Amino acid sequence: MEQNYIPAEDIERRLQQLRSAVAKRGWDAALIVHNVDLLYFSGTMQNALLFVPLDKGEILMVKKYGERAQRESAVEQVIPLSSWNEIPSLIAEHHGRVPKKMGIELDVLPAKEYLRLQEIFAGVQIVDSSSTIKAIRKIKSPYEIAQMKKAGEIGKIVYGEVQHVLKEGMTEIELAGILVAEAMRHGHQNYLRMRAFNSYAFSWHVLSGYTGGILSYIDAPMGGMGLSPSFPVGASQKQIRTHEPILIDFGICYNGYQIDETRMFCLGELPKKFKDAYLATRQIEDAMTALAKPGASCHELFRKGWETARGLGYEEYFMGPPEYKTRFIGHGIGLEIDEYPFIAEGHDYPLEQGMTFALEPKMVFPAEGAVGIENTFCVLEDRVERLTPAEEELIEV
Amino acid sequence: MEQNYIPAEDIERRLQQLRSAVAKRGWDAALIVHNVDLLYFSGTMQNALLFVPLDKGEILMVKKYGERAQRESAVEQVIPLSSWNEIPSLIAEHHGRVPKKMGIELDVLPAKEYLRLQEIFAGVQIVDSSSTIKAIRKIKSPYEIAQMKKAGEIGKIVYGEVQHVLKEGMTEIELAGILVAEAMRHGHQNYLRMRAFNSYAFSWHVLSGYTGGILSYIDAPMGGMGLSPSFPVGASQKQIRTHEPILIDFGICYNGYQIDETRMFCLGELPKKFKDAYLATRQIEDAMTALAKPGASCHELFRKGWETARGLGYEEYFMGPPEYKTRFIGHGIGLEIDEYPFIAEGHDYPLEQGMTFALEPKMVFPAEGAVGIENTFCVLEDRVERLTPAEEELIEV
Repeated sequence: MEQNYIPAEDIERRLQQLRSAVAKRGWDAALIVHNVDLLYFSGTMQNALLFVPLDKGEILMVKKYGERAQRESAVEQVIPLSSWNEIPSLIAEHHGRVPKKMGIELDVLPAKEYLRLQEIFAGVQIVDSSSTIKAIRKIKSPYEIAQMKKAGEIGKIVYGEVQHVLKEGMTEIELAGILVAEAMRHGHQNYLRMRAFNSYAFSWHVLSGYTGGILSYIDAPMGGMGLSPSFPVGASQKQIRTHEPILIDFGICYNGYQIDETRMFCLGELPKKFKDAYLATRQIEDAMTALAKPGASCHELFRKGWETARGLGYEEYFMGPPEYKTRFIGHGIGLEIDEYPFIAEGHDYPLEQGMTFALEPKMVFPAEGAVGIENTFCVLEDRVERLTPAEEELIEV
Repeated sequence: MEQNYIPAEDIERRLQQLRSAVAKRGWDAALIVHNVDLLYFSGTMQNALLFVPLDKGEILMVKKYGERAQRESAVEQVIPLSSWNEIPSLIAEHHGRVPKKMGIELDVLPAKEYLRLQEIFAGVQIVDSSSTIKAIRKIKSPYEIAQMKKAGEIGKIVYGEVQHVLKEGMTEIELAGILVAEAMRHGHQNYLRMRAFNSYAFSWHVLSGYTGGILSYIDAPMGGMGLSPSFPVGASQKQIRTHEPILIDFGICYNGYQIDETRMFCLGELPKKFKDAYLATRQIEDAMTALAKPGASCHELFRKGWETARGLGYEEYFMGPPEYKTRFIGHGIGLEIDEYPFIAEGHDYPLEQGMTFALEPKMVFPAEGAVGIENTFCVLEDRVERLTPAEEELIEV
């Protein structure tokens, strides 16, 4: 089977950026421990760690499975690792010396492993590399954007299927399952990655009628009921009825790269109140994307979204019920679903060419339902390009 | 919609066990931060932390969403939390004092959050509570076992579907998607939980022919090809052909509780070599389960499995190729897929009534395929009960 490997030039450019950042921060090296960062900087997601010193000479230390890591990775030095205890001696042997100050992703490394690395690396100062790595990852290469476009194409197929399978009385989770199967058949890996502690991301947010107004733990305008207290988000066993707003927020992952999007459906005619609200979310999206280009600040976009929502008379419903509004209208996305940039208050940094983010203006009517649009965009030289080509019109079946 | 809440008496018994363990270890309290442990000890998985002092008077501090946490949880004191910085003052206010020594799950708490809690709780000794909590969770109540039986029933339906949908030329991932959809329709939440760092668990291990012999990062006899280097496990785009062993290792999660099982299929007749090997794995399972009852040690079971495999002439193929054999033949399972007990060398503790574990004797023929059986069992007073009732015979379609 042909495999879609990350191009060697992408890996080399990423490593070069990391080496520059390491130098700028006054560290001697970075040790990559998080599997998603490992994929990004080495090309493989096998059980391994990547040592990145100031100068060239990265070392990929592989516990399992060495042959596969070697095949997938553009890193030249691939050596076997049987226990984390060996890491300093392997670094000393292959790099010549153990670093004095080293960055590690402390936002994901469990405390127990951190304390263990502190013992193993006695005398080495360990600092948090997570914001440095997130800053590098926020700009996507043409290769990365191509993967996301492919995910967007799968999304178009999946949303196109809804009108053929949606039937009165089917449960939200049944519809979600059919869409998951369709997405998998086209290469969706049925797993979305999210970096934040205690957080999951997943494809099957199918919310119909009142479940669209149910809140949950996630920082999103609507949570949905989910299947049980052990999975209190997304599709539930509620049966889908006529004239309800059906909101489908379905993320797709192709070759590790994710897109996020939302479309609206209804069995029969959707009541005017929801139709109007849905049109409002599309107007809000248009107002925001008209501003979106390199140099525009993220919180400027955020404020534009809110200003437009208020102007259209939707302040009460926009981005959640009054006391539970989300702090963002959009979020960066790529290998993980919670990347930079955040389209939120306080995020005053500018959009840059190559950034990719999802915008999700949504309206919540507690006990009645939710409506909204979501697309994933890429920042070009002078505008944004939509990576999620699925039809945006409300589909009434 | 009726919701399946964890019974209040289960929550009270679990908290009593945790209080006893806290006292025994000389701590003043435990602070539950991991969402799966939070579900276990409080009944809710909302964004919250649970403070469990030596004496009664647990405090559930909820960031979002308070109303839902209150409804789902049997804990009496439910109070709002706007920032982790408030935790010590909330504890002082509602408990009367801040603990001197407190257990937290350091095996999952990210280092960054650990360092933040150390600052917030200046002067408090923070110790790792993870093994204490795992020890409590390893014995399941009748309620928990009932959830796992329900997951096993869904598994029976899913495996029963294979013979109706399996067709030559369909890809592994297409078949996996159909099974995922069928499982979801019956209440599977399409997400398995695993505690270990950098580890995922998921339902769609569909391996046909040579992909059954492909290794990957996971500590399992076979990894499969997966869809790409970014998801290098499980089903792939390989097309399924006749006379290949088709191994389907499909975990189900119902109401948070998981089972793990494997069954074998073939399009047309399966060559004798694989049939014999599959029968051998079933003989190994029988030899192991005949020993399994309270008091039998886990490594005794492990050795029995290996002894049987050797006796049948399968030493080379059992549990992976010679240099990459797994260290276990079985693993505990419940809310997470990597619980106690481990049926492995060095695990010399005894089985106890109420433990639940999966046994997975498997054979790997590199470049040719894999065969094996897997069931989830519960330890009764004098034997084990199988929780996964799907037909065990090889199905030739």
